[in-house]
Amino acid sequence: MGNVVRVGLLGCGTVGEAFAELLVERLAAVEDVTGIPLALTRIAVRDPGKPRSAGIAAELFTGDPYDVVKAEDIDIVVELIGGVTPARELILTALEAGKPVVTANKELVAAAGPELYAAADRGGVDFFFEAAAVAAVPILRPIRESLAGEEITRVAGIVNGTTNYILTRMMGENLAFDEVLAAAQELGYAEPDPTADVTGADAASKLAILSSLAFNQSVAADDVPREGIVDLDRVDFELAAQFGYVIKLLAVADRFPAEDGGPGQVGVQVFPALVERDHPLATVRGSFNAVFVNTDAAGELMFYGRGAGPRPSASSILGDVIAAADHLQRGTHRKVPVGAPAAIRPTEDLAYSFYIRTEVVEAPGVLSEVTGVFGRHGVSIQQVDQDGSESQARVVFVTFPATERALNGALDELRLLGHVRSIGRVLRIYK
Amino acid sequence: MGNVVRVGLLGCGTVGEAFAELLVERLAAVEDVTGIPLALTRIAVRDPGKPRSAGIAAELFTGDPYDVVKAEDIDIVVELIGGVTPARELILTALEAGKPVVTANKELVAAAGPELYAAADRGGVDFFFEAAAVAAVPILRPIRESLAGEEITRVAGIVNGTTNYILTRMMGENLAFDEVLAAAQELGYAEPDPTADVTGADAASKLAILSSLAFNQSVAADDVPREGIVDLDRVDFELAAQFGYVIKLLAVADRFPAEDGGPGQVGVQVFPALVERDHPLATVRGSFNAVFVNTDAAGELMFYGRGAGPRPSASSILGDVIAAADHLQRGTHRKVPVGAPAAIRPTEDLAYSFYIRTEVVEAPGVLSEVTGVFGRHGVSIQQVDQDGSESQARVVFVTFPATERALNGALDELRLLGHVRSIGRVLRIYK
Repeated sequence: MGNVVRVGLLGCGTVGEAFAELLVERLAAVEDVTGIPLALTRIAVRDPGKPRSAGIAAELFTGDPYDVVKAEDIDIVVELIGGVTPARELILTALEAGKPVVTANKELVAAAGPELYAAADRGGVDFFFEAAAVAAVPILRPIRESLAGEEITRVAGIVNGTTNYILTRMMGENLAFDEVLAAAQELGYAEPDPTADVTGADAASKLAILSSLAFNQSVAADDVPREGIVDLDRVDFELAAQFGYVIKLLAVADRFPAEDGGPGQVGVQVFPALVERDHPLATVRGSFNAVFVNTDAAGELMFYGRGAGPRPSASSILGDVIAAADHLQRGTHRKVPVGAPAAIRPTEDLAYSFYIRTEVVEAPGVLSEVTGVFGRHGVSIQQVDQDGSESQARVVFVTFPATERALNGALDELRLLGHVRSIGRVLRIYK
Repeated sequence: MGNVVRVGLLGCGTVGEAFAELLVERLAAVEDVTGIPLALTRIAVRDPGKPRSAGIAAELFTGDPYDVVKAEDIDIVVELIGGVTPARELILTALEAGKPVVTANKELVAAAGPELYAAADRGGVDFFFEAAAVAAVPILRPIRESLAGEEITRVAGIVNGTTNYILTRMMGENLAFDEVLAAAQELGYAEPDPTADVTGADAASKLAILSSLAFNQSVAADDVPREGIVDLDRVDFELAAQFGYVIKLLAVADRFPAEDGGPGQVGVQVFPALVERDHPLATVRGSFNAVFVNTDAAGELMFYGRGAGPRPSASSILGDVIAAADHLQRGTHRKVPVGAPAAIRPTEDLAYSFYIRTEVVEAPGVLSEVTGVFGRHGVSIQQVDQDGSESQARVVFVTFPATERALNGALDELRLLGHVRSIGRVLRIYK
């Protein structure tokens, strides 16, 4: 049908190589189904002489990325270098040269999204980044297109495969964090430096991207407070199981519109949480991810699939490349709406049910004293579970929804009580 | 930005009314986010004088549907009459007049899809029907666009809310089918005539639509063999629970490519099945739906949400209307690929693990006799559970995957054995 659409690739690491292989493998099938003839025309890498996958022709490689982003014979640029520098500069150059760009670079999009969207719009071309959100899971396109007429009120879910793999094994096999992390690293499920995953930073980047598009407001990764999974204790997994929960690392974004209908505030947070065992998120195991999108009219939607991995990411990138090629041939593009920066609601003002593990000295009236403190701070107790005998007991409280501010007030006062030996882990409960 | 895009509606039943209200409610927000000014211009109904929702202006109503599908002042037609006649004729007229059409009519699309796709292509306009698949759940757009470069191998899931509601309650509360159906009808979760739902016909229509788009082959509703949930017995729910399963009505489509890479065969089926309790489909409760899409590169994806209901359907229709309006303004449209009719693999050749409930006369050697029969037909037994004492026992067999043909051969021979009193329910096990 149309002219051949020539794809230039920046970077050929594990994801880049998987994409190049998938593209070559699917050229005929894509043309067959969509009528669009694609070609893989050039690949810029640091070392063009390095041996590469047999499926990719050696003459495609170049050492100069500007041979891709400024080249006359490249129609679409796929950026898979990762990181902010030099990816940002290269993408801006391509967009300014009127070339659509597809990227999987969540760090960059979460840090500099609005700048890139504006450059794409100036260039009159597409800037697509489905793989930067939840890798293989189509979620940005449904949010931007299928739900374009919707009022999205919440985006929440499991968006990091490494931590979900670790938590699934800690939960299922009663193992400690360090043991599972070491095993995950050996199997390639966790990076040698797992910091971005286990601290929640990676999830925060993805949440920034998802919430920006869902709420049409601009949320940056730095806006997202995060708690990681590094200091989770085995005892909390046991207690969670006993109460019918599993522990998951969640990324949660809520929109709180102003009473006058204005944009209001956005609550964004990454944290480990208790999730009821029969909640759909509880069955998301291993390296799988799942994101709930709550909307006014459609209600609750969930998107589930592989949130990491070279080939799943490549699948998502190929979908974006086909969409960009289709738009190129029709002389059109889809603008990413750049929302104004969101007003972030302080985490202290966000309300959850809480799980609170404490050690108390057993004595008559202690429980009533402790629950009295909660009550004075407006925190209602839904469940109390006391374990232990003699003089010391572990008491777990589960609260009704309360703000973190109210809870912290109660906990500060509890710490002053002589009968309260220690306040251990506090975890949010996600419903 | 562009000109106002004038929407004409056919039908104002529960879904039509919900759509008209949602559209009017969202006009400003849609223009704000997408730059597209929409208007609700006319609504064709059988009785224009009938009192309607306060949110819809009385002067919009007409008794003549051709006042919509042929009118100069209508840019997009939304068909929500349902059924084949006169919807088919009206849609064809609109498409031939160069008006894009959005519909939620699964019966029509599953019966006459290729004819409508061809008419849309001749008219150079969009024909969208996201709400005809799984109502609120965006799945056709992700399949058609995000997964355009993918090889989809399976589409499977829960696509009927009424039966899932009934099965969830039968499973959870140990109630009989008739009791739950009556309650569901009272609550409006089941139609006064529930035939299309409980026989699996509705699910078969949706599976025809999903598999046609996923496999790029044409599957009609009549191609889909279906078993309903009418004759499910309480004892099977109890036994399922005992073995760690729940019972769900599933729609399953598999692609079996030919060895030479040709289209090969498609296996399509609707049936009640045992699903392991911690499988993500097991947590899909009440009127929710969920569809797994298995692909070569992305792996396993799942889409979850409300598969029925006026407002969820309206959300999905509005998404399609916005996409069609966007294409109209850009002078483009997206062709539905019309695949050749699929070769349907006979159900006898599809392989599953089976659950088989039998009554046998207890005697030495009976179990070995029965398992011997299974073995001779190539059906391997994974689990045997015998309950009862004295002379008669209920024995449940769980097999390894075997074709229905092999299983039926074994069951036919078992029926001839004197010690086998009866063969009760046989259910597939979905993994």
